[in-house]
Amino acid sequence: MASRRTYLDWNATAPLSERARLAMIDALLLPGNASSVHSEGRAARSAVEKARRQVGALVGAEPSHVTFTSGATEASNHVLTPDYRMGRSPVTVSHLYVSAIEHPAIREGGRFAADQVTEVPVTPDGIIKLSALDALLAGHDPASGLPMVAVMLVNNETGIVQPVAEAAALAHKYRGLMVVDAVQAAGRMAVDITSLDADFLIVSSHKIGGPKGVGALISRGEVLMPKPLIRGGGQEKGHRSGTENFHAIIGFGAAAEAMSEDLLGRNERIGSLRDRLEHAMKEAAPDVVIYGEALARAANTSFFTLPGLKAETGQIAFDLEGVSLSAGSACSSGKVGQSHVLTAMGHDADVGGLRISLGPETTDADIDKAIAAFGKIAGRRKVPEKAA
Amino acid sequence: MASRRTYLDWNATAPLSERARLAMIDALLLPGNASSVHSEGRAARSAVEKARRQVGALVGAEPSHVTFTSGATEASNHVLTPDYRMGRSPVTVSHLYVSAIEHPAIREGGRFAADQVTEVPVTPDGIIKLSALDALLAGHDPASGLPMVAVMLVNNETGIVQPVAEAAALAHKYRGLMVVDAVQAAGRMAVDITSLDADFLIVSSHKIGGPKGVGALISRGEVLMPKPLIRGGGQEKGHRSGTENFHAIIGFGAAAEAMSEDLLGRNERIGSLRDRLEHAMKEAAPDVVIYGEALARAANTSFFTLPGLKAETGQIAFDLEGVSLSAGSACSSGKVGQSHVLTAMGHDADVGGLRISLGPETTDADIDKAIAAFGKIAGRRKVPEKAA
Repeated sequence: MASRRTYLDWNATAPLSERARLAMIDALLLPGNASSVHSEGRAARSAVEKARRQVGALVGAEPSHVTFTSGATEASNHVLTPDYRMGRSPVTVSHLYVSAIEHPAIREGGRFAADQVTEVPVTPDGIIKLSALDALLAGHDPASGLPMVAVMLVNNETGIVQPVAEAAALAHKYRGLMVVDAVQAAGRMAVDITSLDADFLIVSSHKIGGPKGVGALISRGEVLMPKPLIRGGGQEKGHRSGTENFHAIIGFGAAAEAMSEDLLGRNERIGSLRDRLEHAMKEAAPDVVIYGEALARAANTSFFTLPGLKAETGQIAFDLEGVSLSAGSACSSGKVGQSHVLTAMGHDADVGGLRISLGPETTDADIDKAIAAFGKIAGRRKVPEKAA
Repeated sequence: MASRRTYLDWNATAPLSERARLAMIDALLLPGNASSVHSEGRAARSAVEKARRQVGALVGAEPSHVTFTSGATEASNHVLTPDYRMGRSPVTVSHLYVSAIEHPAIREGGRFAADQVTEVPVTPDGIIKLSALDALLAGHDPASGLPMVAVMLVNNETGIVQPVAEAAALAHKYRGLMVVDAVQAAGRMAVDITSLDADFLIVSSHKIGGPKGVGALISRGEVLMPKPLIRGGGQEKGHRSGTENFHAIIGFGAAAEAMSEDLLGRNERIGSLRDRLEHAMKEAAPDVVIYGEALARAANTSFFTLPGLKAETGQIAFDLEGVSLSAGSACSSGKVGQSHVLTAMGHDADVGGLRISLGPETTDADIDKAIAAFGKIAGRRKVPEKAA
């Protein structure tokens, strides 16, 4: 069934890449608790450390600064906390500033209380307003503790690249910490923790062709670190307890290594497929609104509204045509909610947007099929009067 | 290599069972975010719900009361919190009482402050002192909030079964909550959340032949629930955010189903292998101390001290003989620490204990090899004078 359908929802989850799958199938034959000292344990440990190098390399970080977690959501809850340690000394972070278009795992604020979190507005184009961030940080009371800024590098719905290095410069101007959600950016553009001037980066395995259930919190240094979220046996140098997720970590590492190779070439190919799709969409329905079309976007993402077609209805229609895509993001169970991203951009979230997201295995035939489905669906919708 | 070695460290991690492996390899070919509404998403959702039934059935719980987590450590940190909700009303748990032999993930107290956690002593035999628990609970101030009691069903080092139902009766006598760490019990004895009178049970996948990176917090009801530890997209009915760990959950379900079958027969076979090993150990070294030998133990575990042989040394010696076992538990990275379980039992933790733990695939040949290794190692140790 999977082979006859066209899967264009890579931002929700990427199919496991062949390299990750082969690495994991080999590993599934090995027992081994990476914290055991016998041969099997040492083999597991060595594989985990290899994966740490592979994941670090994807974002220009030291392997020892990679803390494996159960995913990006856990990493977000881990890093977003008022309780930090500088070596052994406690450091308080008193307020979190997040863009209004962050993923819910960031917008919920992790371990901060609700009144410790402030949303920074975005422009109608869907880009964080740096002037608003500057004004908010200028009003931050440094006596209460450090400010923390969290901005995603690539928005999960629109694919629009955010001015993270500029936001980091502001965070640091006010002696704050900069957290970057790089979940949708890793593998889709060059990501380097140093050039971004980020203190912490968050990466997810299943968005880059690795398995679900694993991600990483990556730090710039190792002196200033958040209080652990999950305590117990003291794995991951005490930062994250729990038996190392050995097989998934191996798959994550293999996927990260694959994503590091031919980054530009791969994304050029994906971008030309996406551009062909958008060109055809505009031919079939000149009133289609493609968000961020003229801006820097991840090459694989197209987020659009077709006037007269509710996003939920559109998603079902594409599904019936054998094309899988998302209405907004797939972040919560069974919920087909409004897009907080469109709302933050000042658009009518009632109509909503449809997201098509491509991956390295997307083919010309997939795009042909998506174009054909789009034409059929656009042709039979009721075009609202104002748009006719 | 793995096939020529004898792996007797199933309490640290069980090799992935054939059924879990096959279920996962099939699933690895499917993409799918279980929260997406297209066909692939619905297929993933249906597989997750099947696994929920399989895991619930292993411990006699309703499927809807199973919350998947990244493992038992996360489940422990999730359930051990002062902040509960009864429907929408907040409920405060003001103190946690844990046995002195709990796993570190429980002993660390999760989200309780250090001064909110009290350890309950154990007898020299390694069984929680119920009279001490009763006295502590009698001194609990109910005006401050509810008491919570956490006791493991089977100790991970000794295999000794704890009087959980009796501890639960005490917890409930004082209107408290009962948390049972069933990580080492599930699949090794009949476990039923109702007969144990537990409010919450914790289970780990990789101890029962499923993959690492997944576990469950299982509740008796669904009205009184802990404040989420990991917030974001609202998966798992809002109790645990983060994309469902689809492939691992499927493996966990398959392993749970396999473990539910022939429970008694399987553990009788494992117990007779363990008993043959212990009989041979006593013949080769009559001074060997086998902890809990006369008590109710999980059929697969043997924890012992060989006078004159430090546990760390013994572990390396067995490893060189091709036999993998543990010195205490393998719970933290690279650390070969003292056994807090032996200390709590009043034994000399400096010498430490060695743990042999068997699984469903352990063979007579494995036991022969372990007996031979034991004989060699026991024969060349320096027997201390008092033991000679």
